[in-house]
Order: sequence, then structure tokens, then C-alpha cells
Amino acid sequence: MLTKRAVQDAAGLIHGKVHRTPVLTSAKLNRLAGCDLFLKCENFQKTGAFKARGALNSVWQLSENASTVITHSSGNHGAALAWAASQRGLKCFVVCPETASPFKLEAIKRYGGEIIRCGPELEDRERATEEFLDTHRAEFIPPYDADSIIAGQGTVALEVLDEVPELEQLWVPIGGGGLISGCILAASGVVEVIGAEPDLAGEAFESLRTGTRLPPYPPKSIADGLLAGIGVRNFEILRENRTKVCLVSEEQITHAMRLVWQIMKIVIEPSAAVPLAAVLDQQRLVEGRQVGIVISGGNVQFAGSSLA
Amino acid sequence: MLTKRAVQDAAGLIHGKVHRTPVLTSAKLNRLAGCDLFLKCENFQKTGAFKARGALNSVWQLSENASTVITHSSGNHGAALAWAASQRGLKCFVVCPETASPFKLEAIKRYGGEIIRCGPELEDRERATEEFLDTHRAEFIPPYDADSIIAGQGTVALEVLDEVPELEQLWVPIGGGGLISGCILAASGVVEVIGAEPDLAGEAFESLRTGTRLPPYPPKSIADGLLAGIGVRNFEILRENRTKVCLVSEEQITHAMRLVWQIMKIVIEPSAAVPLAAVLDQQRLVEGRQVGIVISGGNVQFAGSSLA
Repeated sequence: MLTKRAVQDAAGLIHGKVHRTPVLTSAKLNRLAGCDLFLKCENFQKTGAFKARGALNSVWQLSENASTVITHSSGNHGAALAWAASQRGLKCFVVCPETASPFKLEAIKRYGGEIIRCGPELEDRERATEEFLDTHRAEFIPPYDADSIIAGQGTVALEVLDEVPELEQLWVPIGGGGLISGCILAASGVVEVIGAEPDLAGEAFESLRTGTRLPPYPPKSIADGLLAGIGVRNFEILRENRTKVCLVSEEQITHAMRLVWQIMKIVIEPSAAVPLAAVLDQQRLVEGRQVGIVISGGNVQFAGSSLA
Repeated sequence: MLTKRAVQDAAGLIHGKVHRTPVLTSAKLNRLAGCDLFLKCENFQKTGAFKARGALNSVWQLSENASTVITHSSGNHGAALAWAASQRGLKCFVVCPETASPFKLEAIKRYGGEIIRCGPELEDRERATEEFLDTHRAEFIPPYDADSIIAGQGTVALEVLDEVPELEQLWVPIGGGGLISGCILAASGVVEVIGAEPDLAGEAFESLRTGTRLPPYPPKSIADGLLAGIGVRNFEILRENRTKVCLVSEEQITHAMRLVWQIMKIVIEPSAAVPLAAVLDQQRLVEGRQVGIVISGGNVQFAGSSLA
């Protein structure tokens, strides 16, 4: 069974290889939220997202004989694994649906990853990955439902707790649940970890409510890092810890993201704005508290000729 | 005559009342630029721009009897003066053209400034300011053509030089010239200060070329903080120091701004991207050098429903 110890081990393994990202505060944001906010800025992390932690921990746990890794993720995990593999001189293949944005494929290639194209459905991705594994010697590194990933992502919570000992709550976005389940392990018995999800991608909330792990909703939310369904291990950790999850609308996400851009002058992606949106929505829960938020990433595609 | 000493005095006066902003670096940006870049991030300054420095220095130099200040600026100086005045318990009036964006007026009001509306021309602003000064006891704090402003803005260069002793060049945007003339005084004899201007607002470049101070060009550049004409004192300081000025296109400005958003995950305004655009354009001038850039501000209006 995965415990805080695995997270501490991961912290030792990746120490000095990923950034210890800053914890930023803003008096103006505190006034708006009615509490003391501490933003753990993983938008400044290697590859622009916390995913570098779990990917690096996973790659560093492989045996010395390993030469190749593969995953299926067109998002931040794909780029993070390509980067992590390059740090150990391994080859990395990333199975991506034909529908993935050129912007994201670009990031994977920039870190040295090779793209394997497949159809748009989850089954297409799984089939393409299995076909590759049948014919190549490679290690599959899943995006969230793996011990090494969960332990790696949890290191972000260790750093916040170390830097803000007075913390009472830690708000974390939920996609597949790698980040939040790692944070729950890391923070167990110290601070309450609270999840945040878009209404339009609220499988974790609904899975916990009904007691049955649900498949992902149709990919409609602007929070493109949170579209995955909750993983098996991840769901278990949330259920056992009776983790509270709050839902927010698309408007609340966009509003929270713009607030951070405007007030703090840092670029965060929509997924990263989801826990702040939830904090702003749950004034009674946070009022007067010392509240941490994991700003999960900053990979936004700015394009076109307008400013915003 | 204004000297480095005035900048040092200003630094003492505003110490602890403005942020000592971070100097950020990026290996990726260095590779693109072919030199070692040091970004002095005044986008994280109070009021979101370096203007807080000059405004605060000016307000703190007023006699104890002063009760009211006034300026005409719909941009960052108006907001900065309103903020600075509030720090000393003074009233602040800001003469703004009817055409000023609601976003900017909002910032001035947020810091406690009172708006006086006027017509769209420079003469309208000057007339409204004079009418106010005829009927009220108030101190006029101009946006750039004043010793206290120049000395205050120059403190930003003192901080960079202190933090990066190996610096060889400091690139600075030019609007009215308050920032660059302060930086020239602060850096005199230590590092070369180089100016950057949009093609569409290149009065300083053209004034230096012709030896005659030119009025502002029509306000067409996206770099809305650099639309003012070069001031009298400011022009003198640039001329005496034979300051080099480089011009950049609107496309180069937008490209440089997006690069910083994407790579560094910080929000900078178009005006702040102008010196980086110039550095990227002048590879021969910067190659292999230790190059500072003043990121002048981060006040961008994000609006509409799209991400960018």
C-alpha cells in the first residue's frame, strides 16, 4: 500500500532535478477570497506543469537496462515524460490521438518525444500502446494510475507544507487524480486536502457520491488538463480519505484564471485555475483560514492577433 | 544637474515602500537570444509597473503641507501616482481624455485617484490641468519630464546592477524617457544602456538622429505605454550620453510578448516586450553578452471569452 513514505522517497529521488517552485501570495487576492492564500506555482516547474515530478520519479525508478518508455497522453504528461526520459538518456514514445492540438504535439517533440498517431477514442490509444509494447521492449508509464506517478506528484505537497507550516487546507485540481492522491498521502494527518473539478468534468465528485468509479465525461471543459476519468488507485485513495470535492462552472474557471493573470502577473492554465475558482465559491469553508492552492501548470496557447 | 546621486537618494527614500522585484532568467530564452538575459521584472512592482518608483519618490519629496497632487496620464503613471499619493494620505486627481479605456480608469480609481475628464488632445489635458491648478492648491507631478520622476525610475537600474554585477548592457523601453534617462544616470560608467522603441512610436530615435526633439507620433503602436513624445530633460540625457536606440515592428513586439508568456509564464505588457524584441533583432550586438532587460510592466487587459 502506498504511504507518505513513498512520497518522501520520491522527493529524495527527484531532488535537484526539478524546480522547487515558489509559493506566491497576494494581499489583493487574499481580500477577494477572505482568507490567506498560498499559491504553489507549478506553472514555473520544468515542462510548465507538476507532471515533471511524477514522470521523473517513474523514469528514475526504472532498472538500468531500460532504454525506452511509452505513454498515451497528448497533454502535459506526454511532454513531461519526454523531458524526464531525455534526462536519463531514454527514448520516449507518446501515443496521441489525431485530434490532439499541434501546440501540444510541438511540446512533446521539443523535449525529444516521438509521436505515434492513433484514432480519437480512449480504446484507440490503448490499442496503439499495446501494439507498440507487443513489438518493442519498452516500459509503459501511465499518466496518473501508477504508484510512481502518485508518489512523484505528492512531492509538491511536501514542499508547501515545509514552506507554510501554518497551512490548514490544500486545494488541488482533479483530472485522473494523480496529483490529488499524492497530495493526500503527503499531507495525511497534517492538513485537509480538498479537490476541485469542473462541473463539466466532475467524474471524481460523482464517483465519490455514488461510490462507483465512473468513466470520463465527454471532453467539454476549458480545463483541458482535467478531462481524464479518475483512476483506480486514485479513486481508492480519495474514497478512503473521504476527500471533499467542489465543483465549479466554466465561467468561474475563466474568471479565476484572469484574476491570477491580472493581479499576480503570472500565466496559469485553465486547469490550474479550478481550485482557486472553488475557493472563491466556498467562502464559508475558507474564511480566515490559511489556504494552499496547487497551481498545477501554465501551458496556455496564446495565438491570433488579439491580446486576449 | 541631475546625477547618479539623485537616483541613490531616491533609492533610499522609496526603500521598503516598493518591491525589490526579482531578476528572472531562462535557459530557453537565452538559447533563442544567443546571450545571457536577465529580466528585471517590474511587472511584479506595486501597481504593476516601474511607474510606482518615480511617483513615490515625487510624492515623498513634497513638503509636509502638501495635500493634493494632480497629473495627466491615463496610463500606468496615473495609477502609480494615485497609489503613491494614498501612501502619504494625499488626494490625487488624474486628468484623463474621454477616449481612455475603462480598464485604465478603473485602475486609477482602485488606488483612490479621482478622474477629471477632458478632450482627446494633449492640449485638452494641459488646459484641464492648468484650470485645476488655478483654482486648487495642488502639486503637479508630470509623468516623465521631472527630476524626481527620472531619479525614481532610475532606482530599477541600481537594483539590477547590484544583483547582476557581471552585466554588460541594459535594454530599456522608451516612451517619454523617464525610465531610460534614470537608468542612464544610475548606470553611468558601469554598463551601456540601450533604448528600444516601436517603429510606430520612434520619436526618440528620430529626435536623436536629427538632433531636434520631435513631438509624439500618432498613437498607433500596440505598446500603449510608449506613445508619449520624448521629454525635454529626457532628450537631453539621451543626447549627452549618445544613447543607442533600436526600433522594432509591431509583429516583433507581439512575438516577444508571447515568447515571455509561453516560456517564462509571466504576464508582461506590450511595452515591456519592446526591449526583448530589439535584443532578438540585434543578435550581433548582444551575442555572448550579459544582457539586462527592464520588463517595465504587466498591465494587460484580458477580455472576451477566448484564451488569447
